Amino acid sequence: MSITARHCLSKIFQPITATSKNSKITRQQVTSKSQRLMLELGIIQQSIPGCFHLLPLGVKSLDKLIKIIDNEMFKIGGQKVLFPTLTNSKLWNESGRLKEVGTELFQLQDRHNHHYILSPTHEEVASEMLSILAPLSYRNFPLKLYQISSKFRDEIKPRFGLMRGREFIMKDMYSFDTDIESAKKTYEEVCNSYENIFNTIGIGYAKVLGSSGSMGGSLSHEYQFKAPIGEDNVLYCSSCQYSANIEVCEDHQKCPNCGDEKNINIQCGIEVGHTFLLGDKYSKPLKSTFIAKDSKPEVLQMGSYGLGISRILAASVEVLSSETEMRWPSVLAPYNVIILPPKKGSAESLQTEGMPEKLYSNLEEKIPGLKNNILMDDRTSLTLGKRLLDAKRVGYQFTIIINKKSAEENPLFELIDIKNNKQLYLSKEALCDYIQQNFRI
Amino acid sequence: MSITARHCLSKIFQPITATSKNSKITRQQVTSKSQRLMLELGIIQQSIPGCFHLLPLGVKSLDKLIKIIDNEMFKIGGQKVLFPTLTNSKLWNESGRLKEVGTELFQLQDRHNHHYILSPTHEEVASEMLSILAPLSYRNFPLKLYQISSKFRDEIKPRFGLMRGREFIMKDMYSFDTDIESAKKTYEEVCNSYENIFNTIGIGYAKVLGSSGSMGGSLSHEYQFKAPIGEDNVLYCSSCQYSANIEVCEDHQKCPNCGDEKNINIQCGIEVGHTFLLGDKYSKPLKSTFIAKDSKPEVLQMGSYGLGISRILAASVEVLSSETEMRWPSVLAPYNVIILPPKKGSAESLQTEGMPEKLYSNLEEKIPGLKNNILMDDRTSLTLGKRLLDAKRVGYQFTIIINKKSAEENPLFELIDIKNNKQLYLSKEALCDYIQQNFRI
Repeated sequence: MSITARHCLSKIFQPITATSKNSKITRQQVTSKSQRLMLELGIIQQSIPGCFHLLPLGVKSLDKLIKIIDNEMFKIGGQKVLFPTLTNSKLWNESGRLKEVGTELFQLQDRHNHHYILSPTHEEVASEMLSILAPLSYRNFPLKLYQISSKFRDEIKPRFGLMRGREFIMKDMYSFDTDIESAKKTYEEVCNSYENIFNTIGIGYAKVLGSSGSMGGSLSHEYQFKAPIGEDNVLYCSSCQYSANIEVCEDHQKCPNCGDEKNINIQCGIEVGHTFLLGDKYSKPLKSTFIAKDSKPEVLQMGSYGLGISRILAASVEVLSSETEMRWPSVLAPYNVIILPPKKGSAESLQTEGMPEKLYSNLEEKIPGLKNNILMDDRTSLTLGKRLLDAKRVGYQFTIIINKKSAEENPLFELIDIKNNKQLYLSKEALCDYIQQNFRI
Repeated sequence: MSITARHCLSKIFQPITATSKNSKITRQQVTSKSQRLMLELGIIQQSIPGCFHLLPLGVKSLDKLIKIIDNEMFKIGGQKVLFPTLTNSKLWNESGRLKEVGTELFQLQDRHNHHYILSPTHEEVASEMLSILAPLSYRNFPLKLYQISSKFRDEIKPRFGLMRGREFIMKDMYSFDTDIESAKKTYEEVCNSYENIFNTIGIGYAKVLGSSGSMGGSLSHEYQFKAPIGEDNVLYCSSCQYSANIEVCEDHQKCPNCGDEKNINIQCGIEVGHTFLLGDKYSKPLKSTFIAKDSKPEVLQMGSYGLGISRILAASVEVLSSETEMRWPSVLAPYNVIILPPKKGSAESLQTEGMPEKLYSNLEEKIPGLKNNILMDDRTSLTLGKRLLDAKRVGYQFTIIINKKSAEENPLFELIDIKNNKQLYLSKEALCDYIQQNFRI
């Protein structure tokens, strides 16, 4: 293995800083734990209000989430597309949303004075795309198109870092069916797929009845992570297992489903996903039709499904982290393993020469899931203690320390498993086995 | 292998259409061969002028290009980030570019009347990002940050489809060095890396002296694909191998390097990449500094490097395709192999039941590079002839036809290799060997 193929911390742009010391970002702008940790530990950096630079470790985590989603989407026949961000305002006028949510939209004109919006969501665009084509045959449906791209919303008061930004990454999917019954089936299928995604991420979530809001449609569900800073209030009833955003509950003291008043409680949630059964709300005004069995054109039935990609990253960190130490879902951690070689110039450093690199290669070979997932902390001018502290703060699940014991005749490696709160001394073989057994990707 | 893990054409959204029949896109808007082919064969779809929907096969090709670039960037320590699209106009005012290129920028205001642009390039943003941090030590450089994202330019007259759009995908990289000598070294390194990328794509290109234009800086190179529709004019001198964009040549009749007048010729080129050695043009006004060895702050030296991602896709198709048949570089083709089972209900269909699926699995197992690269044309209600015609038009390198001969005691498969213009009948083993030997990824 060549040197360039190793991921080395000294080569990674991860400015570790304290927000208080940062000249342009005051603590006042930091409104959540995850935002502070991600800023301080070089995962994101503030740009204009509500917009963030995603730094290399943040991009790595993002790419892992995208891969999980692409895999799940492939299983249900979801097809990846990419719609432009610039959207003709006319389309939003036709659907009626331009007036309804106009103040939340970034709007602009081109040099020819044509009006555009920066789309926060693409129901109109997806509908128009199908309406432009000669109508497809009923045989081509259901159709499930999705994209993962930057979206824009002119929030009055952006907050919580990536959680409520003005520019954010969203996965949005649009389904098209030939009748409402099959649209419902598709809706269920996508909901199941979303549950798979959240189960893979591994953060406890609740699927609750949602409010359709300005989106419209007949049925809607939200996927909520429980967190004190969550801006949604979710009612749970332990009598009948009903749960809903309180926006859809007329009486907040009583379960709308079973009428129980004793076994309900209301918790804060971060909305990380939202699904809508839309019917023809967009396809009708935008004339998205298909050719039915009787050869006549009919209006398509739609669903719309959103996952807040950048929000899921931040919300996961919010739920799992302490005030001082960042924690990630295993499957989203930028790296799962970090190797700490001894301090440069120490006796151990000479005695274990080449050992860290060999261990790196061995782990990659034995555990395929670790490919591109191991980081070498080659900042060996720093003490092991300082580097260990950084590793704990950034939250790599497995920290392997190469020290005195590794230089003995039967070398032992110190392993710190932060998830299971264990500190072990293991031979190389036992180390590989332990990680393989406790590593989830 | 489960059915869901197979890529089946019937499930892919690829509206094959004729531009003339398309109600909203007239032939007048189609200004290049690649644009027409990509529209007609369901790779892209027109949205507003200069903006296109990338459909599933287009996204698949895009993802392949991104992977090639990410791999090359990793080799030279390039680090992937993601900057917001919304950029504070103030930064472009500080660099002086707001006035200079203002009419080409999409500009907008938020609800608080703050001014933003949709960035076409991020020199100012990258510089500011570093200036916000407490200055990094000289030990942290060179630093090479890149992103792949949508960019925006308010072209007066967008044309050639993805080649000159108003919203397009660009890979942009920014290098930071502590002095101009090391900045030059970094510049060379990135140029070499870009050459590797173009060599991998496999389209003949020329690296020529470029015009710095409004970007500024002391040295610039362009990467040009030769094509009749290219909007750049490139001067080549076969006496001394000098080549340059004619914008930098004072006299178009004479080689600026050796003075030769006989051995020069001027050809049209499509600019697919552009590199700039910028010096302190942006880092100085935007105050991007580092702490030098003597503990004093000094201004960083920059380079900027662009690859037109969506343009490379379109330009490749432009260079390789005929008027009626689309062709791709092997490494960018959405799929490399397509399997055509017999028509439903035919004698061969019964005799070869299960064979197409088994062949699909065998190829994937034997040739790891074919994973997710084989397409099953399961539209078996269509004749083999019709499907073969589609396959040829879309340009899959290897078309495997399962027909009468495949049902014989020693089954043979018809293989059409469009790149090498061959039609062969091969046993399964010979088929695997042939593809393995002629397949490049």
